[in-house]
Amino acid sequence: MKEYFKSDEFLIIEEGFEPSYNRVSESVMSLGNGHMGIRGNFEEKYSGDSLSGSYYAGIYYPDKTKVGWWKNGYPEWFAKVLNGINYIGIDVTIKGLELDIAKCDVVDFRRILNMKQGYMERSFVAIDKNNNKTKIVSKRFLSMADSQIATIKYTVIPLNYEGEIILQPYLNGKVVNEDSNYDEYFWEEVDKKADDQVCYLNMETKKLGFRVACTMKYEIYNKTKKIEAQQTKSVCQEGYVANVIKIPVKAGDEITLNKYISAVTNRDYSNEQLEDVSIKEVTKAYDKGYEALLEAHISKWDEKWEENDITIKGDVKAQQGIRFNIFQLNQTYTGDDPRLNIGPKGFTGEKYGGSTYWDTEAYCLPFYLSTAPSKIARNLLIYRYNHLEKAKENARKLGFKGALYPMVTMNGEECHNEWEITFEEIHRNGAIAYAIYNYENYTGDKKYLADYGVEVLVEISRFWADRVNFNKEKDKYMILGVTGPNEYENNVNNNWYTNTIASWTMEYTIKSLDYIKEDHPTIYDKLLTKLELKDHEVDKWKDIISKMYYPYIEDKKVFCQQDGYMDKEQILVKDLPEGNLPINKNWSWDRILRSCFIKQADVLQGIYLFNERYDLDTIKRNFDFYEPRTVHESSLSPCIYSIIASQLGYEKKAYELYLRTARLDIDNYNSDSDDGLHITSMAGTWMSVVYGFGGLRVKDDELCFSPFLPKSWTGYSFRIMFRDSLLSIKVDDTIVIELISGADVMINIFNNKYILTKTNKVEIDNN
Amino acid sequence: MKEYFKSDEFLIIEEGFEPSYNRVSESVMSLGNGHMGIRGNFEEKYSGDSLSGSYYAGIYYPDKTKVGWWKNGYPEWFAKVLNGINYIGIDVTIKGLELDIAKCDVVDFRRILNMKQGYMERSFVAIDKNNNKTKIVSKRFLSMADSQIATIKYTVIPLNYEGEIILQPYLNGKVVNEDSNYDEYFWEEVDKKADDQVCYLNMETKKLGFRVACTMKYEIYNKTKKIEAQQTKSVCQEGYVANVIKIPVKAGDEITLNKYISAVTNRDYSNEQLEDVSIKEVTKAYDKGYEALLEAHISKWDEKWEENDITIKGDVKAQQGIRFNIFQLNQTYTGDDPRLNIGPKGFTGEKYGGSTYWDTEAYCLPFYLSTAPSKIARNLLIYRYNHLEKAKENARKLGFKGALYPMVTMNGEECHNEWEITFEEIHRNGAIAYAIYNYENYTGDKKYLADYGVEVLVEISRFWADRVNFNKEKDKYMILGVTGPNEYENNVNNNWYTNTIASWTMEYTIKSLDYIKEDHPTIYDKLLTKLELKDHEVDKWKDIISKMYYPYIEDKKVFCQQDGYMDKEQILVKDLPEGNLPINKNWSWDRILRSCFIKQADVLQGIYLFNERYDLDTIKRNFDFYEPRTVHESSLSPCIYSIIASQLGYEKKAYELYLRTARLDIDNYNSDSDDGLHITSMAGTWMSVVYGFGGLRVKDDELCFSPFLPKSWTGYSFRIMFRDSLLSIKVDDTIVIELISGADVMINIFNNKYILTKTNKVEIDNN
Repeated sequence: MKEYFKSDEFLIIEEGFEPSYNRVSESVMSLGNGHMGIRGNFEEKYSGDSLSGSYYAGIYYPDKTKVGWWKNGYPEWFAKVLNGINYIGIDVTIKGLELDIAKCDVVDFRRILNMKQGYMERSFVAIDKNNNKTKIVSKRFLSMADSQIATIKYTVIPLNYEGEIILQPYLNGKVVNEDSNYDEYFWEEVDKKADDQVCYLNMETKKLGFRVACTMKYEIYNKTKKIEAQQTKSVCQEGYVANVIKIPVKAGDEITLNKYISAVTNRDYSNEQLEDVSIKEVTKAYDKGYEALLEAHISKWDEKWEENDITIKGDVKAQQGIRFNIFQLNQTYTGDDPRLNIGPKGFTGEKYGGSTYWDTEAYCLPFYLSTAPSKIARNLLIYRYNHLEKAKENARKLGFKGALYPMVTMNGEECHNEWEITFEEIHRNGAIAYAIYNYENYTGDKKYLADYGVEVLVEISRFWADRVNFNKEKDKYMILGVTGPNEYENNVNNNWYTNTIASWTMEYTIKSLDYIKEDHPTIYDKLLTKLELKDHEVDKWKDIISKMYYPYIEDKKVFCQQDGYMDKEQILVKDLPEGNLPINKNWSWDRILRSCFIKQADVLQGIYLFNERYDLDTIKRNFDFYEPRTVHESSLSPCIYSIIASQLGYEKKAYELYLRTARLDIDNYNSDSDDGLHITSMAGTWMSVVYGFGGLRVKDDELCFSPFLPKSWTGYSFRIMFRDSLLSIKVDDTIVIELISGADVMINIFNNKYILTKTNKVEIDNN
Repeated sequence: MKEYFKSDEFLIIEEGFEPSYNRVSESVMSLGNGHMGIRGNFEEKYSGDSLSGSYYAGIYYPDKTKVGWWKNGYPEWFAKVLNGINYIGIDVTIKGLELDIAKCDVVDFRRILNMKQGYMERSFVAIDKNNNKTKIVSKRFLSMADSQIATIKYTVIPLNYEGEIILQPYLNGKVVNEDSNYDEYFWEEVDKKADDQVCYLNMETKKLGFRVACTMKYEIYNKTKKIEAQQTKSVCQEGYVANVIKIPVKAGDEITLNKYISAVTNRDYSNEQLEDVSIKEVTKAYDKGYEALLEAHISKWDEKWEENDITIKGDVKAQQGIRFNIFQLNQTYTGDDPRLNIGPKGFTGEKYGGSTYWDTEAYCLPFYLSTAPSKIARNLLIYRYNHLEKAKENARKLGFKGALYPMVTMNGEECHNEWEITFEEIHRNGAIAYAIYNYENYTGDKKYLADYGVEVLVEISRFWADRVNFNKEKDKYMILGVTGPNEYENNVNNNWYTNTIASWTMEYTIKSLDYIKEDHPTIYDKLLTKLELKDHEVDKWKDIISKMYYPYIEDKKVFCQQDGYMDKEQILVKDLPEGNLPINKNWSWDRILRSCFIKQADVLQGIYLFNERYDLDTIKRNFDFYEPRTVHESSLSPCIYSIIASQLGYEKKAYELYLRTARLDIDNYNSDSDDGLHITSMAGTWMSVVYGFGGLRVKDDELCFSPFLPKSWTGYSFRIMFRDSLLSIKVDDTIVIELISGADVMINIFNNKYILTKTNKVEIDNN
């Protein structure tokens, strides 16, 4: 099933309908606009296998946790991104027979995702059991220009018959989550109405009372001629409203239904406002009309591509792959709303509860930092700032001072349900701190530290200071009982990465406090009071920094992933017999835990983050030791190794690792894209190109590059925003860096400095 | 609520009804006869809080496992001991008003468990809202003489009214398990009938098709006069059958309903036979009559007490406590059926799934070895022998050779649902091997090794040999990624106990093979073929034995519980601030895991099992180190420490530890007896007395004692079976050992040998 979709620079094309692959296609063809998202489901009824998905940003359900044996401190619930009102549905009846692709012969089926313009288009001919042939063409988009609006143009063309067709556009709130822990139904109807002008449905979630209200309006054309009078009625059932439109047709007619939908939630309006706003919004859209809405939508996408396209020459698959990743990231998060974040599956599936993980800080933040105005990345930081009190509660619950950010969350509370993750995978706390550094370093917005950042840093440092354990005999601080980024080890002592990021957090916190004291003394005094920060606390941090224990493999001169790692049988991935990989599908959990195999970058994650601390020899030794032991069974892994390989000049290895995620979902590489797309790992793929091949770094306020051209490509280019300047970087025989817009900027290429101005591009020979 | 029950040498007495304590009382008042068991629920309707429980040995339900994130190798189901047909129910209507103790004034309430004779008796006066006063007296038992029969004598005495009472004895199959993972209903009705002569109900479990068929018959008396003609009808509803008996009464009448019940299952009969057998059995019981049935039942209990009573002088609470334990163990397992085993809660509750744990081998086996003919203990071994193929499958599932016995099971398959237990708590495998040694050593039945034992030993040794990991650098075999008996550590490396018992298993297997080769050469040859055992395998075991790694704390000269244990902050239990204990109620799981505190005997468990290997100084150093770090939050822990304390002459400590479980359930010490009783730990309490205070050991076929008298007691005595001789051991100012029955036996007291004959008791001064 690899290479199921046709290659194209800007399109994802499915030709011919393959029911067994439908869930994957639905995932790949997902649309979103930051406010909401839908999987590539069919409008008309489909009784075959399908994962129906209509998601609304920030609307979730606290499902009762499912654990075998409850233990103190376990989260009570696991937050689920909710499948909500399905607004795409249009049932079709052809001369009394309901159209169901699963029950027809389907000819000339094409489903296309147009990434350039952000829409999905579908066409096919259905031949039903009465031998009536009907061509269907549908095109839909969720407006990037007006995020509360979705529009569908649905055309029915009778090819060989005359008679009556019925179109039944509907809103259906009776939807379920496949991943409901106890097969519960999460929604209740609040209100509805249905007449020929407008269908309105308002649903509320149980427990938290989130409301989603959708309204739809429609118009009917035969070719270009609007049909005013149809024989219609409306349907109003529990959680369901619809219009029923009967149309007499003859062969050659082209009956088009334009369905306009508004979707508003009580995250943005009061419950009382919902009906009014929803109807007003859809009416406005209806009045603008389909073409005008589409035009505004495309124009927004043009802006996005202008800001963050990557082009690749000489490899159309690679081009398609990278654009797919950029496209999905832009669909998932637009950065307008600091209450939102980036779920691992975005709006494309239910898996992982759709909540916020450390993926955001470690993988997504760099993408948004480099491809959007800095306020977008800042909103990702503010999201965590706003959760600080919850993070403090979370630490308290486990018996600690300071703040422990959750492994998974929707509202700041922990909602994962495995002790080895929630209690032990605490390195995530460091990622929150690192994101502040990353933002400050990239944007130069140091003031953020004083306004928000340092409060988070101090509380995280307090957590680390309470979580370490002083070993008198060894005169060292240790961190016992953790799970590192490599989740194929649980409950280990002294994970090198965790110890490293913990100590680094305290260092950076002290440095940040010093800066605020110096540059913003008034704010500093207020902070001391607010945080009740005392000198002895900072002294304790200094003591921990100086006496932190870092496991080390003496004879190999590499950092040791954790205590006891070398007691394991040391085998290399290449020596595993065929059929063993991926080990998470072929081995018991027990065997995985006891093996030396590494799921994802762990020591290397640290070397990636704190790159400047280590000389090339050290980096090389660690890469050479750990890479052959890493199975990369997280989509977040290869990008980190790829970036380091690029740094080491391992160009072939860097490209090979890049390939492992570049087309992960398009090619359903891990056979799991049916569940939804790997949204957060897409940012990692982007990083492999820009940070890896392009060698982007920001050091001491200077933008640095050290690009190389992978052998399989004839050239590539990317665009990045740096402190509100937009740059284009093009790499083929020459390296050309241009300033597209914004102020002049000092850049550094292969350790040479250049000043980039609008009239002065930098061009370097690349042979 | 401590000391809720009155003290008595042979009775457990509840005086006055305390609804909030009802679940505990129901647990404590449970009855069982090896074949079935019931909690101390009321016969009449009770709308207050209650855990209704009617259990049938070996009838279970494979409930779908509840885990947060599925991982390879997880068991698909968690076996639940099933709540089945409730046969004790008798609804009572007084002049049109249903009797419900929760809605009456209740006076003179007494609920008594008579341990001497094995019945529960209850009496009270209920004053309903019409001010009708009714005295109720009920007495019931599950026959030890005929395990398929239960009998209830239920007397209703109108004190201040005349009119009609209705008695409605019933069988109710519509029962649920409170611990159902997905609130499922586990039973379906097969068949029923109800007439005035007989009510019959046959229920079948979903999935596995276990059937339980119950039949009831009744008779009515007014005082001693049988009432022949009542106005009756019968009720026949889904899963429910009943007789409805209307009786005109006047004050002073004593209306007694004798309810006879048979309960048979398709574990013992074919589905076709069930109805016939069930009706035949109950008819036989009915014909014998209540008094004759009770007499036969009591006579069986007399035999039990004759065999295994422990008397304690000078401390009635201690006397009551130890008898309660012996009583419950005898109720739970009679040893007639090698398909059965001893669930942690016996027939007294649902918790822990009621399945077989290593508790059986480590704690219960010694009790049955010493208190019953050897075939009873042998049946416990045969149980595991019969599960050998499943244990091999279980090892295969995790990728290992040999056999891994499950942590929890009903039918040999693993059915626990936490990876840190199922995959890692593999020391349990050693307990299965040790039980074979224990049996052989105690009974002298070496032939068992050849007939059954060694097959189990070889397969367990094969597992260990595959599970160890050779560390070239250290030239040692290691066992990584385990959970020891101390479940407050998960996924540790080189748990001393696990490494010890693994190596010991291989040693004992080799020794057993040598014995069979020598003494049973024909069997030996057959075994080699059957097991496909090769010399190189045995050589590998020898290599592992000689190079096994045992962590050691050099400066303290004690065995180290596992790698890294000493990196933990070393605090003692006595230094914990008040309110921290028990830590499993007050600390997060995370904090528990990272602490040095030990849930239950771990290193000490090894020292207990392999006692003869260690000199007293070594034992003392280890006890002195580990005991102050042990929180004993498993009911299986204090007994082991108590036995070692006795051995070390720490008499006060031994007694103090003994007290922690002696009255665990009677005093609801851990506030969890509402869930059911701690059946398997009761055997541990028995061991504290017999192995600890009495100093019982069997060394080289010799029965050894080194008794002491705890200061709070004026004397104690116990009886034990040793190789079919019954001995009485009495300890007060003198130590008197008598042979009650069976052949002469050589004994050893304080290292002096004596020959015990029927005419020659041994008497030693104890001052």
